[in-house]
Order: sequence, then structure tokens, then C-alpha cells
Amino acid sequence: MWEKAIVVLFLISIVKSEYKYTTNWFKVPLDHFGFQRNEEFQIKYLVNEDHWDKNNGPIFFYTGNEGQIELFAQHTGFMWDIAEEFKAKLVFAEHRYYGESMPFGNKSLDNEHIGYLTSEQALADYADLVDYLQGHEVNPKYPVIAFGGSYGGMLAAYFRMKYPHVVAGAIAASAPVHMYPGMVPCEAYHRIVTSSFGIAGSKCVANIRASWGALRNFSTTANSSEWLQKNWKLCDPVRNATEVQQLIDFLQSMYEILAMVNYPFASDFLVPLPAEPVRTVCQYLNETLKGQALLEGIGKILQVYTNYNGRSKCVDYKKGSDYGNLDASGWDYQACTEMVMPMCTTGQNDMFEPRPWNFTSYSKACYDKYKVYPKEGFARIQYGGDKLDAASNIVFSNGLLDPWAGGGILNSISSSVKAVVILNGAHHLDLMPANPSDPENVKLARGIHKDNIRTWISEFVEANS
Amino acid sequence: MWEKAIVVLFLISIVKSEYKYTTNWFKVPLDHFGFQRNEEFQIKYLVNEDHWDKNNGPIFFYTGNEGQIELFAQHTGFMWDIAEEFKAKLVFAEHRYYGESMPFGNKSLDNEHIGYLTSEQALADYADLVDYLQGHEVNPKYPVIAFGGSYGGMLAAYFRMKYPHVVAGAIAASAPVHMYPGMVPCEAYHRIVTSSFGIAGSKCVANIRASWGALRNFSTTANSSEWLQKNWKLCDPVRNATEVQQLIDFLQSMYEILAMVNYPFASDFLVPLPAEPVRTVCQYLNETLKGQALLEGIGKILQVYTNYNGRSKCVDYKKGSDYGNLDASGWDYQACTEMVMPMCTTGQNDMFEPRPWNFTSYSKACYDKYKVYPKEGFARIQYGGDKLDAASNIVFSNGLLDPWAGGGILNSISSSVKAVVILNGAHHLDLMPANPSDPENVKLARGIHKDNIRTWISEFVEANS
Repeated sequence: MWEKAIVVLFLISIVKSEYKYTTNWFKVPLDHFGFQRNEEFQIKYLVNEDHWDKNNGPIFFYTGNEGQIELFAQHTGFMWDIAEEFKAKLVFAEHRYYGESMPFGNKSLDNEHIGYLTSEQALADYADLVDYLQGHEVNPKYPVIAFGGSYGGMLAAYFRMKYPHVVAGAIAASAPVHMYPGMVPCEAYHRIVTSSFGIAGSKCVANIRASWGALRNFSTTANSSEWLQKNWKLCDPVRNATEVQQLIDFLQSMYEILAMVNYPFASDFLVPLPAEPVRTVCQYLNETLKGQALLEGIGKILQVYTNYNGRSKCVDYKKGSDYGNLDASGWDYQACTEMVMPMCTTGQNDMFEPRPWNFTSYSKACYDKYKVYPKEGFARIQYGGDKLDAASNIVFSNGLLDPWAGGGILNSISSSVKAVVILNGAHHLDLMPANPSDPENVKLARGIHKDNIRTWISEFVEANS
Repeated sequence: MWEKAIVVLFLISIVKSEYKYTTNWFKVPLDHFGFQRNEEFQIKYLVNEDHWDKNNGPIFFYTGNEGQIELFAQHTGFMWDIAEEFKAKLVFAEHRYYGESMPFGNKSLDNEHIGYLTSEQALADYADLVDYLQGHEVNPKYPVIAFGGSYGGMLAAYFRMKYPHVVAGAIAASAPVHMYPGMVPCEAYHRIVTSSFGIAGSKCVANIRASWGALRNFSTTANSSEWLQKNWKLCDPVRNATEVQQLIDFLQSMYEILAMVNYPFASDFLVPLPAEPVRTVCQYLNETLKGQALLEGIGKILQVYTNYNGRSKCVDYKKGSDYGNLDASGWDYQACTEMVMPMCTTGQNDMFEPRPWNFTSYSKACYDKYKVYPKEGFARIQYGGDKLDAASNIVFSNGLLDPWAGGGILNSISSSVKAVVILNGAHHLDLMPANPSDPENVKLARGIHKDNIRTWISEFVEANS
């Protein structure tokens, strides 16, 4: 009886969190690194001081990533869980060009305005914000610990690397800081997606691999469009090769996201999903299926993915990777400028159709969309890839169920740049709120995080006393 | 006989160096941190490979500062002196908006084009250039050691701090990384100028301090303008209060520069000057002088300063601090944007007329000139002031005769961020070519530099093997 009540409580706190914060705005320059454009605009940040010791409590600072900041505040339960113990102030800063932190209102993502959407500018926003929170002091009073997951984890790590005088340490969860050209094989990501599905069900991978051909074959048959729209509850029919490709892209993105958020509890982080979503969907593919039976199985997976909360009327497959809570259009621009992350599928070591990585065509597609060419070497030159031996006070955590772990740091680099590997963890599970379903190794990881944070705070206090 | 010949030889090598290099150009983006402006332009860099071991010899990289790069190549003899011993390739990179590295040709310094003159953009230029010199490799082959003096020394240190994966270590000579608002007293610089003159002659400081009143008094008398123009060999007469102030500004700048380049040998680094220029000029003020006699003494100093090579027809006092080899207009813009360095004189602890520091009026003057307001906290937030405990592999060297030492790091911060103090050294004397007149402590400093460089190279080799 009690146990059930607790589970229900947790479900509520995850699906609709009761975390309380004030919403604040902070003025930043459009361009931190030049003076030709002197416009300013406001970024949003959320604050909770419930447990803060204003004399010497730390500031826990979430370096917001590609989405509105409330999403990350609501899903970074780890910061809320440990705020009282550390007497910390919580700050969640929204990344420029996401959420409501728009320099040019609803025209911000237009080609003539989007150019100041870069990670360097975002980090400089955060540095200015921390300086403001510290009262513009030469000797700032409060140790600041950066937290972030995924691209936010990269930003947390880069924040410490580029501004160590501003940030005492960083918890960089599921940060694929290796996933740049020439550093890891382009198929790493999809290999891990595949292995997560392989663990969840013995026939799952083979069925999904077979489904692409089945779908392509089926789509050439009479009435296939009608059958698919009805059976898969698609919003739009699938009438031609372009639309078949869009549907395939949507399915591929679905498997990627299911692997990313394969948490042991129900979560609505990216899309509303049940606990262990990969195991859940693989139940529909637990025997070798073919033809229409196979497509029916995939259709059931689509329903779990798009309508777990029962609120969706149809599957909007034309949204492609823009589906879910993140803001794909901003990120697509970042991937087309600074954050070049080569990805490919081989069909051999993964369950997808082969799709090679080709920087030239990637580059051309970016130019067609945004009139800019991606800088292939930018992140390597600016952020150093894995050459992090001069960095300090960073924890890189990665769950081995998470496809992004393919570009993560899995071995400690030094005594103060440490890797924490979570065997049964999906995408930054360690930043999620504590949950009765948590595997032991994520509890352990959170303990290691707390130990490191304690050390970094002590170092700061010692250096400033 | 031999001794004399050697001295003459050295004089020649200092006055007109025989250092050989190729001149090269490298394309950089106008804006590294945004994509709204996608213009490119070329920066100049000089290369010497005479002693380079192409298999694993290091690259010694001078981070060019506010002037044309040949000036720094010719006067950074230390790099040339040790190139053979280290089998190093020498690279001297010109700072954007100086020399010939102009993004918009001769319109670059116009208000509508100058906005991309920032230290961050210059460092990103250098990082791209190093990446190119390394062949765009994920695992670069050659250890790179950064060298720089003065603002170039700040850049060398910041290069290591912001791009430790690009640069293995930095020799930052006479880099005033503390000279930002709130970090050191604003009178520090002029106190040291004064103490250098105090060491050189017992009456020197008192005479110079008295000369301001003498000049102001004299300038109100009949025929003073005629007398001054003739006796001081001024290009223009001094007819009113504004021109008196211009002349006083020129004199103050003269004393500052004499103190900066108070080398034990003749040098033409900033202006052509004899060995120990401060002692030389103080000879004209070796007894207590008053009125016209005092002004005659000052006039003789003006001659040494402006016409040591006998080529100047008159003293162009209206040039103010724009006199000499550096490019004052670019630097003035940088000081009006990012590099806010508060300076003041009190008339008590220094030999100048009192002039307080006032950020508000400074800021207004900047806006009037450039239509931008300086960012008072920028360098602190971006570069951390003295909060360098997370940095590594930097040597900060300072000569105690150098006014800029007032904003330098004089105590080691850690086992790998070290201070080297040169008792009898002027502005980055340690980077000048070895000279028989060198004091012992600069020889010692150069030995320490070499030891550190050796260590950094070993660390690089070990990390990459």
C-alpha cells in the first residue's frame, strides 16, 4: 500500500514537477567578442534560494542547452535533491536563441539574425551572469559549480575550461566532447542505439533491421498509403519516395530517442514515455516478424513513442527530428556551424539502413539552408577534443546505454578530470531526480559527484581565505 | 680593440637586425564567434626554419601585439638566440588591425570597421594559424611554445589559458595581467616610472616634478612660445593652454617610455635611444635647477628622446603618445573597449602633476571617439585577473625597473605558473637578444625560461607518445 503510494508520488513529481523558482532576466550583449554590433537583449534564468546559505553557500549553475530552460530545471532533479545538503542557491540559465531568450524576438532564427547563436557567446553570457550574481567582485564570494547534461554537459565542461576563475568545477553529464571529426568512428552513436535494443529483446534488432526493407517494399504496393496512415495513425499519407524517406527518418530518430531516454522510470523529458521504454517497445518485436506483421509491430512502437499520454491524435512524421521537447531548429543551425558531429550508419554493426558520412554534402546542405558553411575543425580548435590534460575539476559521466557515450570521456584523464561510467544508465540519468527504480551504479555516481563538489568547494574556500 | 668591435657589432645587430624570415599570409574569418558576417582577410606571419628539426622540433610562436610584426620579430632576440639549441621553428604572427593585417585595408580603423579588433578574435586567429601549421591534425605533432612581451605577453599567457590543447606553455614577459579595475592601485605604474628616475640621479625626480610648474609659469610670459620652439626644437609653437597641455602630455609619455626601455644597451625598440637612457637623461638634471635653467635641462632630455639618431628635424609634440614605433591608434581603441587599465598620478608618490582616474569621464571620452563604451569588467571576466590557480605552464617575468611590473605577477601562483623577477630589468629585457651589457639576473631569467620550455616540451612528448 505504502509502496504503491510512493511510486505514484514519484510519478507525479517526474511527470509534473513541483520545483519552485523565480523567473529572472539578465541583459547581455548580442556580441561579446566584437563592438560593431552593440545591441543587447535579455536571457532568462531561474533561481531557487530556499536552502541557500547567503554567507558562504555555493551557487549551483545549470548551463542551459538547446531547449527552454524550464525543461532542464524540471528534469535536473539531482541539483534540487542536493541543494539542501550543500546549502546551495540554484540557478538555471537559458541558452541564447532558445526558449524565450531571443535576441530578435520571433525573427531570431531567421538567417539574417541567427548568426550570434554560438556556444562561445552562450558561455560568455553565463560568465557575465555569474559575475553579476557575485556582485561584480574581483574576489567573488561564492564557489560556483556548473552542471549540465548532453550539450549542456559540454557547456559545463567548457565553462570550467575557458573560465576556471568563474567556475570552481563542473559536472558534465553525457557530454559527447569527443564527437568531432576524426576523433571517434562516425558509427559509434548508432552502434550503441542498436546494442541498447539488443539488450532489451533478442529479436528486436533483427526485426527493426528488416523493417526498412519491408516498409520500402510495402510502400510500393497498392493501398499501402491508406493502410499505413490508418494502421500507424499518421497525420499525413505516405504517397511518394520523399515521404517514405521522411517516415524512415522519423522512425530512425524515434529509435535514437528511445535509446537516449531509456530510463528505469516513466519520464516526459523528451517525450512522455513509460519506464524502460526500449524494453517496452521491444515486446512488440519478440518473435521474428515479416511483411505486414512486422509493420504492425513497428506501428505499435510508434504509438508508444508518440502517444504514451493518450493526448496525441496522430503521428506527425513530417516533423522528423524536430519532434519532442528540444528545440531542433536552433540545434540544427549549431550543428551546421560549430558543432559538426559526424554520424553514419553501416547496416552491419547497427540496425539502420547504411548512410555514410559525407562532409561535402553535409556542408552543402547547411549552406543551402543557412548560407553558411560549417567549420569542420572549429570545436577541435576551440575546445580541444580530448586534449584535456590541462583542464581541472571536471567530472565526465556517461551511461553505457546512452548512444552519446560513443563520444564521451570514459577514462579519467587526470586526478581532477575524472570519468564516471554508469553501466545501466541512459542519457544523463545521474542528473535526474533520485528514484526508487534507480540502479545501484547511478546512486554510486551521484555519491562521487557529491564528493567532487565538496572537494571543489573546499579548494575555493581555501584559495579565497 | 676587440671589445670595441664587439660593442659596435652588437649595436649594429640591435639597430638594424639581420634576422631572416619569410613573410607569409594566412586567411582568417573576420568574426570567429558568430556567423552573421562571413568576410575573411589575411594576417601576416613571419617564419624561420633554419634550425628546425621537422621530425619533432617545437614551434616557437610569438603572439603579436600592437604594432607591425617585424618590429617584434627584430626585437625578440631571445627566440632567435635559442632556436638552434631547441631545433625550433620560429613563427611571429601579426595581430589583426596592426601592421598590414588589416581586414578592411586603410579603412580598417574607421569606426564602421574597427569593431572586430579584440583580443579574443586575435587569439582565435592564432589558434587557427597553429592548427594550420600542425596540418589540421587531431593529434598535433609539434609542441608549440608561445612567447610575448607586454600586451603580447598577456596574449601568450591567455593563449595558454584559453587554448591549452594548442599551446604547451607560454613565456609571458612583462605582461600586466593585473592592471585591471580594482586589482592594483591606479598609481602603481607612475610610481615605478618615478622610482626608475630616482635610482638614476638624486636630483632627477625633484627637478622633473618642479618642471611642470616652471613650464606652466614660463608659458604665460612674453616670448615664451618663441623661446620654447627654438630652444626645445619644437615643430609647432606653444601658444595657448591646450598646446601647453599637449606638450606636457608629450613629456609625460616621454618619461614613461624612457623608463620602459631603460635597457643596458642602445636600442631602437620604441624610439632610438642610448644605453641606460634614464641615467643618460638624468645627467642633465644632476643639480637643483629652477626656471629657465630647468627648462633648458628638460629641453636636452627632449633632444635625446626625439633625436638620438640625429635624423629628426624637430619635436612633433602634438603626436602625444602616438610617438614611437607602436601603433597607438589601434591600442587606444582596445583600451577603450576591452583593455581598461586604470592609471592615475598623485604628484605625491610620483613626479607628475596629479591626475585622478575617473572611469566615467574615461568612458565618455571613449564614446566620443569610437561610439562605444568600455566594458570595465571585461578582462576580469574573460581573463580572470590574478585568479590563475587553474592555469598551468606559464612563466610571468617582470623587470622591476619596468613601470608595467606594477600590474604584473611577481609571485609564483603554483608549481607551473611561475613568477620570475628581474631586479635590474626594464620592459621585457629578457626577450631581447643576449648582450654583453646584460645584468646577471636577466641571464638567470633566460636560463629559467629555457628550463621551463624543456619541461613543457617533455610533457607534450610524453602525453603524445
